[in-house]
Amino acid sequence: MFISLEGLDGSGKTTQARLLGRRLEAEGHEVVVTREPGGTALGEEIRALLLHGGHVAPWAEAALYAASRAQHVDEVIRPALERGAVVVCDRYVDSSVAYQGIARGLGLERVLELNLAAVDGLLPDRTFLLQVGVGDAAARMGGELDRIEREGDEFRARVAEAYGTLAARFPERYVVVDGTRAPDEVAEEIRGALRGGS
Amino acid sequence: MFISLEGLDGSGKTTQARLLGRRLEAEGHEVVVTREPGGTALGEEIRALLLHGGHVAPWAEAALYAASRAQHVDEVIRPALERGAVVVCDRYVDSSVAYQGIARGLGLERVLELNLAAVDGLLPDRTFLLQVGVGDAAARMGGELDRIEREGDEFRARVAEAYGTLAARFPERYVVVDGTRAPDEVAEEIRGALRGGS
Repeated sequence: MFISLEGLDGSGKTTQARLLGRRLEAEGHEVVVTREPGGTALGEEIRALLLHGGHVAPWAEAALYAASRAQHVDEVIRPALERGAVVVCDRYVDSSVAYQGIARGLGLERVLELNLAAVDGLLPDRTFLLQVGVGDAAARMGGELDRIEREGDEFRARVAEAYGTLAARFPERYVVVDGTRAPDEVAEEIRGALRGGS
Repeated sequence: MFISLEGLDGSGKTTQARLLGRRLEAEGHEVVVTREPGGTALGEEIRALLLHGGHVAPWAEAALYAASRAQHVDEVIRPALERGAVVVCDRYVDSSVAYQGIARGLGLERVLELNLAAVDGLLPDRTFLLQVGVGDAAARMGGELDRIEREGDEFRARVAEAYGTLAARFPERYVVVDGTRAPDEVAEEIRGALRGGS
């Protein structure tokens, strides 16, 4: 089973991925909790180019994310799924579609197409969208901000709207979760949704 | 006007790009002779990842070439075309379609789609395919070989066939040139084809 977590930076995805991984392990599953670029050597180099480099053309940005994702699927996600592990991934294809495709205006369909090509059609069985207010998300981001995190509230609002569009487009795999509650409550809801269908 | 040169490594593309650039300049045109990654800082870093890194998943390779190309179009090619220069490009979208799409088996249509997205639909007005025998091409490559150049004759034969497929698919922009003759003769034919239609 392949699960992805989506939402704004600061929406709690990383915490929820870890909590979900622990619960599933406690229940006896082999679990791989990963995030893009997923610890592949190539992915880390691409990440460095993306977040700390100079001017990156919008389609170059989209293609670099797709390249990192292709390597992540090839080295980490597909082998884990093939040996029967549960994969919990912090951001996946939908992040690119929301950020580059919709919020930056490259086009939902074209960015989705590019990414479906890059991952050879592999989509999650279930995607949890952690919804928080745009202001909350900004407040939760600590430390030094990278190139994407420095974008303003207006951009974040477009991303939030983009995720809503994706949730409506893919109702069979999307579960929208209120991410403003205590982490344990959010984790409980996610576990329940996985157990009982959404 | 946007011109691309395609063919195997060792087919004389770089020489012909330079000769064509000189001729067009002598005739009074502003000319930009470029090659992928086209001297963009990001492109050079991507090139280093591609040619000298470790294992690169096939779709990661394709997406990295597309990213480099997107940056090249954004920084170099489109600005040059917009100010009225002639652009002569040593390899472009068709290289990815031939190498990754056809010879590596990722699929002509999907790699073309990925690249058309990355370059926002910008294709050359004229593409010159320099045809040489697979053995000739290998013999002409000197110095230390990179990851792609170390591929064997069988792979090169698939690439050569792939270019034939592309020439048949895009007859309106493709001109197939016998690249085994003296460089000046080849240059003469290319200049003639540009002047008089193919």
